[in-house]
Amino acid sequence: MEKVIHDPVHGSLRLGGLVLELIDSPEVQRLRGIRQLGLANLVFPGANHSRFEHVLGVSNLVERLGHELELPEKELNPLLATAVLHDIGHPAYSHTLEYLMKDYLGKDHMEFAGSILLGKASTYEREEIKEIQKLRVPSVVDILSKHDISPSEVAGLVLGKHRKLYLGQIIHGDIDVDQMDYLLRDAHSTGVALGMIDIDRLMGTIIVHENRIATESKGVEAVEGFLTARALMFTSVYFHHTVRIAEMMLANAVEFAIKQGSAINRYNFHRLTDAELMERLHSIPGYPREIMMRLRYRRLFKTAYVEERRELTRPEKRRFLKKYGKWRQIRMLQDEIAEKAGLPPGRVILDVPIVDVLISEPRLEKVEVPALADGKLVRLSKLSPIAEALKKRQAPRHLLRVITTAENVRKVMRAASKVLG
Amino acid sequence: MEKVIHDPVHGSLRLGGLVLELIDSPEVQRLRGIRQLGLANLVFPGANHSRFEHVLGVSNLVERLGHELELPEKELNPLLATAVLHDIGHPAYSHTLEYLMKDYLGKDHMEFAGSILLGKASTYEREEIKEIQKLRVPSVVDILSKHDISPSEVAGLVLGKHRKLYLGQIIHGDIDVDQMDYLLRDAHSTGVALGMIDIDRLMGTIIVHENRIATESKGVEAVEGFLTARALMFTSVYFHHTVRIAEMMLANAVEFAIKQGSAINRYNFHRLTDAELMERLHSIPGYPREIMMRLRYRRLFKTAYVEERRELTRPEKRRFLKKYGKWRQIRMLQDEIAEKAGLPPGRVILDVPIVDVLISEPRLEKVEVPALADGKLVRLSKLSPIAEALKKRQAPRHLLRVITTAENVRKVMRAASKVLG
Amino acid sequence: MEKVIHDPVHGSLRLGGLVLELIDSPEVQRLRGIRQLGLANLVFPGANHSRFEHVLGVSNLVERLGHELELPEKELNPLLATAVLHDIGHPAYSHTLEYLMKDYLGKDHMEFAGSILLGKASTYEREEIKEIQKLRVPSVVDILSKHDISPSEVAGLVLGKHRKLYLGQIIHGDIDVDQMDYLLRDAHSTGVALGMIDIDRLMGTIIVHENRIATESKGVEAVEGFLTARALMFTSVYFHHTVRIAEMMLANAVEFAIKQGSAINRYNFHRLTDAELMERLHSIPGYPREIMMRLRYRRLFKTAYVEERRELTRPEKRRFLKKYGKWRQIRMLQDEIAEKAGLPPGRVILDVPIVDVLISEPRLEKVEVPALADGKLVRLSKLSPIAEALKKRQAPRHLLRVITTAENVRKVMRAASKVLG
Amino acid sequence: MEKVIHDPVHGSLRLGGLVLELIDSPEVQRLRGIRQLGLANLVFPGANHSRFEHVLGVSNLVERLGHELELPEKELNPLLATAVLHDIGHPAYSHTLEYLMKDYLGKDHMEFAGSILLGKASTYEREEIKEIQKLRVPSVVDILSKHDISPSEVAGLVLGKHRKLYLGQIIHGDIDVDQMDYLLRDAHSTGVALGMIDIDRLMGTIIVHENRIATESKGVEAVEGFLTARALMFTSVYFHHTVRIAEMMLANAVEFAIKQGSAINRYNFHRLTDAELMERLHSIPGYPREIMMRLRYRRLFKTAYVEERRELTRPEKRRFLKKYGKWRQIRMLQDEIAEKAGLPPGRVILDVPIVDVLISEPRLEKVEVPALADGKLVRLSKLSPIAEALKKRQAPRHLLRVITTAENVRKVMRAASKVLG
Repeated sequence: MEKVIHDPVHGSLRLGGLVLELIDSPEVQRLRGIRQLGLANLVFPGANHSRFEHVLGVSNLVERLGHELELPEKELNPLLATAVLHDIGHPAYSHTLEYLMKDYLGKDHMEFAGSILLGKASTYEREEIKEIQKLRVPSVVDILSKHDISPSEVAGLVLGKHRKLYLGQIIHGDIDVDQMDYLLRDAHSTGVALGMIDIDRLMGTIIVHENRIATESKGVEAVEGFLTARALMFTSVYFHHTVRIAEMMLANAVEFAIKQGSAINRYNFHRLTDAELMERLHSIPGYPREIMMRLRYRRLFKTAYVEERRELTRPEKRRFLKKYGKWRQIRMLQDEIAEKAGLPPGRVILDVPIVDVLISEPRLEKVEVPALADGKLVRLSKLSPIAEALKKRQAPRHLLRVITTAENVRKVMRAASKVLG
Repeated sequence: MEKVIHDPVHGSLRLGGLVLELIDSPEVQRLRGIRQLGLANLVFPGANHSRFEHVLGVSNLVERLGHELELPEKELNPLLATAVLHDIGHPAYSHTLEYLMKDYLGKDHMEFAGSILLGKASTYEREEIKEIQKLRVPSVVDILSKHDISPSEVAGLVLGKHRKLYLGQIIHGDIDVDQMDYLLRDAHSTGVALGMIDIDRLMGTIIVHENRIATESKGVEAVEGFLTARALMFTSVYFHHTVRIAEMMLANAVEFAIKQGSAINRYNFHRLTDAELMERLHSIPGYPREIMMRLRYRRLFKTAYVEERRELTRPEKRRFLKKYGKWRQIRMLQDEIAEKAGLPPGRVILDVPIVDVLISEPRLEKVEVPALADGKLVRLSKLSPIAEALKKRQAPRHLLRVITTAENVRKVMRAASKVLG
Repeated sequence: MEKVIHDPVHGSLRLGGLVLELIDSPEVQRLRGIRQLGLANLVFPGANHSRFEHVLGVSNLVERLGHELELPEKELNPLLATAVLHDIGHPAYSHTLEYLMKDYLGKDHMEFAGSILLGKASTYEREEIKEIQKLRVPSVVDILSKHDISPSEVAGLVLGKHRKLYLGQIIHGDIDVDQMDYLLRDAHSTGVALGMIDIDRLMGTIIVHENRIATESKGVEAVEGFLTARALMFTSVYFHHTVRIAEMMLANAVEFAIKQGSAINRYNFHRLTDAELMERLHSIPGYPREIMMRLRYRRLFKTAYVEERRELTRPEKRRFLKKYGKWRQIRMLQDEIAEKAGLPPGRVILDVPIVDVLISEPRLEKVEVPALADGKLVRLSKLSPIAEALKKRQAPRHLLRVITTAENVRKVMRAASKVLG
Repeated sequence: MEKVIHDPVHGSLRLGGLVLELIDSPEVQRLRGIRQLGLANLVFPGANHSRFEHVLGVSNLVERLGHELELPEKELNPLLATAVLHDIGHPAYSHTLEYLMKDYLGKDHMEFAGSILLGKASTYEREEIKEIQKLRVPSVVDILSKHDISPSEVAGLVLGKHRKLYLGQIIHGDIDVDQMDYLLRDAHSTGVALGMIDIDRLMGTIIVHENRIATESKGVEAVEGFLTARALMFTSVYFHHTVRIAEMMLANAVEFAIKQGSAINRYNFHRLTDAELMERLHSIPGYPREIMMRLRYRRLFKTAYVEERRELTRPEKRRFLKKYGKWRQIRMLQDEIAEKAGLPPGRVILDVPIVDVLISEPRLEKVEVPALADGKLVRLSKLSPIAEALKKRQAPRHLLRVITTAENVRKVMRAASKVLG
């Protein structure tokens, strides 16, 4: 059976067999309920696209690239499976709760996807599992086994790991299909043209050379364009300060809810969809409900204190990571500022976006796609001053930012200066 | 204060004053939580755009058209307010529950918007009103009064009514800005190019003549293109049979929930957002939760019986309306079929899309935009065989359709033939 | 060898073998010098795209459709050759001189392409042939023979004729790839969105059934969209009255030049490229040079007399064809008007666009793509009132039009009324 | 009178008064006959767009920016005039003959535009002037004077010079409207997405500060995107090696023709349109005609010797300019190589693209748009490592390249190594 699905980014997609079966699994259908860009729609009203769409797009790009590289079926199939499944570990609102996942689970969303694939974890809460079983649908693990695909191979690919290096790199590498799809899709949905990349040229000039993904020399500009688009989208959209404010508010509300531990707890918080998370927050009086209402009706916290970005040396980065690398550390610091300002916890929120980059999106500093020039592989930064420059560029406009409710901005500014200054 | 917002369809929108204040009202912010195309994303995965985006788009088109027509501020401002507010009466999933609204409230979403504007109704349940008040945000009614705009003028405009006919027609007429925005936006989000209209030409050739909206003769093709695009989008997207199946399932689940009358009842069902409605359905064991799970994981009912479209005479249409025009009538018929098939109520669902057209989208048969040819107004169907043809064209591909769970298709087919045949 | 070419409409095209060789032939390279839309750039400044681009696009669509229909290579190759070669018989400015070709050669551009393919004619003037030979490039006939493709099969396909009906229809039928490409390309270049068609859906729903091209029933809307787009583009772009004025001026200048018979004569007029034709007209003092200067600097003739379109009965069409079907007839009538107005020949030009439709673009009235509904083929007009309506719709806004220089408009109006009224 | 023109890049343009009159002047109409990208269509078949379209686009952007910056009419009008007129000095095939202009006229196309504006030169050959006069159309100088616009102010603006610095910079500065339009238009026509810039953001964040054009800090990413897009388009399109080969062939053919001095001579070569130039080359037997035929049928010279790009120090750049900065110097060197290879002059062509950048497009190294951060102007390269990197990036992939006919490649390679190595 084959099915044609219309995708606003890549046109008509023809799906069949493996991909179609995986898409119908509850783990992947769940992604319809998770917005690709978390709360970015509070700033970019069009940003309502879901991880589900993205996953279809990635599988389409894998198919296209697999065709270009003439990959044999036994390499292509695990790649396709990974394309469809690489995001099943995502919590509600995509990257917003990543920090908490790391802290409470000790896993990021990719590692959690691995656990699901290996049958060690589930995206569902206990009661839901029973109801899903009533629908009598095969799980992801069943489908993989039916198609003779090794779950652990897929779990590795999600992390970009594979004995054949290029297979991992296609999914999760310096210029992977995941990033290609999200740049195009986010540009399409937000209307921010900065993310437009030359997908045709990228697809046409990526090669496999010495077991690795590389680019033909005539593709260098397309790669430069890709790297720049990515950097600019991070600054203007993903790390837009208002988006960050909203996301940090949500993360703090979830933290409070977990502490109370009823409708939302440390075992379920990352399994919920956007809708579930919001409705459960709403059901918890006090801080969680207040924040949920503020997000729903867009009454956001304001900036009280900000430290502008500057180029960081390697030791500085290390120091930042050491000081702010854990959710608990940040919580303690923000509570210290709140106390100094005479405010209860939760009224003051500290955001250190640079840590996010270093932890969740290390690809952002990876610009070393090898280019094939005259039969030899050359590091891109050798060929391209742009690539070299992007290594140094700080994607977030601010190193750190302290936010609070409108009426407390002054108080918090003073307190933050003392604690962080 | 002015704000620039990026819209994927119309580019950068510059918002200020009246429009910005209205957008910040809770009534309009609520629209972020309502998908423009209901459950169409189950078929067109990109269809996640919200009524909120649409409302921004419509206000942009009003501004553009107002500029073209050189409308004075005291005509433009009520129009702008209406553009932002015309959808505040919408229940979750847009048109899906319209039928139920008519039945339980005796009002469609536009009439309900009127009630809100006149202070006779609210989009919120009682408890929520208090929480919103804590956020200290001005309501829509306050803002209108601050800007000296008459709520009843706006309530009239929502329905396309105004002493100055053209003002009503701009918002809700044969070729209004509401339809222009949704065609472009739905095409953009679904990837179905059929909805592409020549917005530049439309904007440039619409005029006011003898108190009415008309088109210059050089704009006739743009209008023909608009009318055709609308007809084709109705058939391929809005009335796509799988979309209808999902929406009818949801409507029936809500009906069951209302009958039980706890988390969802006749007073609140139309005030909820998509997320709230789904989560509440989930909280109600039995039919509501089952249907919600089926929608969430895309296990839809199947077609058991179908009557293909054909051209209907006027008396036939009247007969259809008389027989199927009310939700109760349809419920009785579908229960009759269910009984005959030995199934409990809810297992059999009857869909009569033609009634929807006649009741909710009478604009679809309105194709008589007057065109100005040699200084005289001519009816479009005089100039354009296309316009004439569209009057006869049935947008839905099926007159009626009976659906049920996969395993009961045969039984229901027989039963339906007896009852409806 | 394979080559990637960037096309603004279809993206990266991968060309190789047969197609690449044919493209490199002088007959096809010549098409770089012929604008797809003749003089339409005088009204739509972006309309500078060439027949060469179009031909690449058509070959791309053939490849795509061939893949969808799983055509074997021995059917696909002649189709690809035809796609590349179908326009080699075109004179300068595309359709502008078609009338003259019919009159002087007794052939339209497709029939002339056939002559070239069969080795009976050449696109070049005698001297040029020698110079081309110096470049030592294989001719089209050589390349076809190298690839074992029958020139007469290709010559037939150009006219839409083939024993296997569907092969002919793919190239030149009711919804052929030629039209699909030109609608998209002309919309892209002119910025007139009316030509946007849903190419993805068309490609995905066209089938071969009982030896003919048909559409699946779920493709009906895409076909309706296609037919409407075509009709609207004809009215707004191809038959735009100013475009017609410019093109008729050019045709008359060429006629004068042929009469003088030096730089341009009846044997070479249709072989020249746009540039050659213009420069040669410039070299001929008197009327040809004047018209050329008027076109170059956009000092166009004005309308003196016009008869608006109306629905024509079949006998009326026949009468029109009988009266105006030949270039000579039109010349005689316009000269009669000129005489009556006291003006020399050439000052008055008569345009009867309806004849053009009937002679050169009979596809415009062909809307009977068969649709497959429930296993049976149904005529589209049965399913679609739009298709039915398009049969009656007159693409040109005017039945006939008389033009002259600005200062003679009144005189000519009176004279024309007498002669034509 | 007002006129609406459809532009494929910016949509419907509403033109009136000054702009419309200037557009109708013969100087501007002439630009219909000059392709924006010279011979790039030999590589990018869609690149047939004309300077005329571009000029309309630039005037549209000036209007838009003027509106954003709230420029008074007496500043806006000269800017609009300059937008329409800035390219009237262009020779055929845009930048291809720039080198020769410099050498024979001692002026580049902008300086020549200045001469025309000041009434010291004309775009026409003597005989043509008379014929244009017959068309009785006002010249550019007449129109400016009618609108009280100083020709010398416009002549200065063409070069980016104005007492009010920002006025000059809007037309010809680091991020000017000229570049914005050409990047978008070239991307649109070639299908190379690398040129896509975020025009909405650029327009919305450009400000005037201390008499200069600057960007708000929230516009920095849009500027980074603009600068990168420009750099990538130069490398992939404008300096594509095959495009350069074709353009150098043409320049050499014109040089030969000038030397012969009949149909083409040093007084007229830069006044001709693309069509005229080609047809005149064709009329000159020997080298000019051969090259013309090679270009027409795409039989291009091949690369014999190439020196790859590398980062150049300032002194190296100076040395390059000194050695290759003049057309004569290059001619002498290429003739020396030809002689050494035993070939007649013209068979060997030397291309040194870096000189072109330094001479004709110094904007390419200008990346210092000031950005307003916290009320202070900061140099962009301070804020953006990308901007810094672009200063160092060589747009052309090759420092120099020697080309010849296919059969002489080896011979010439050896000879070039000796002369240049």
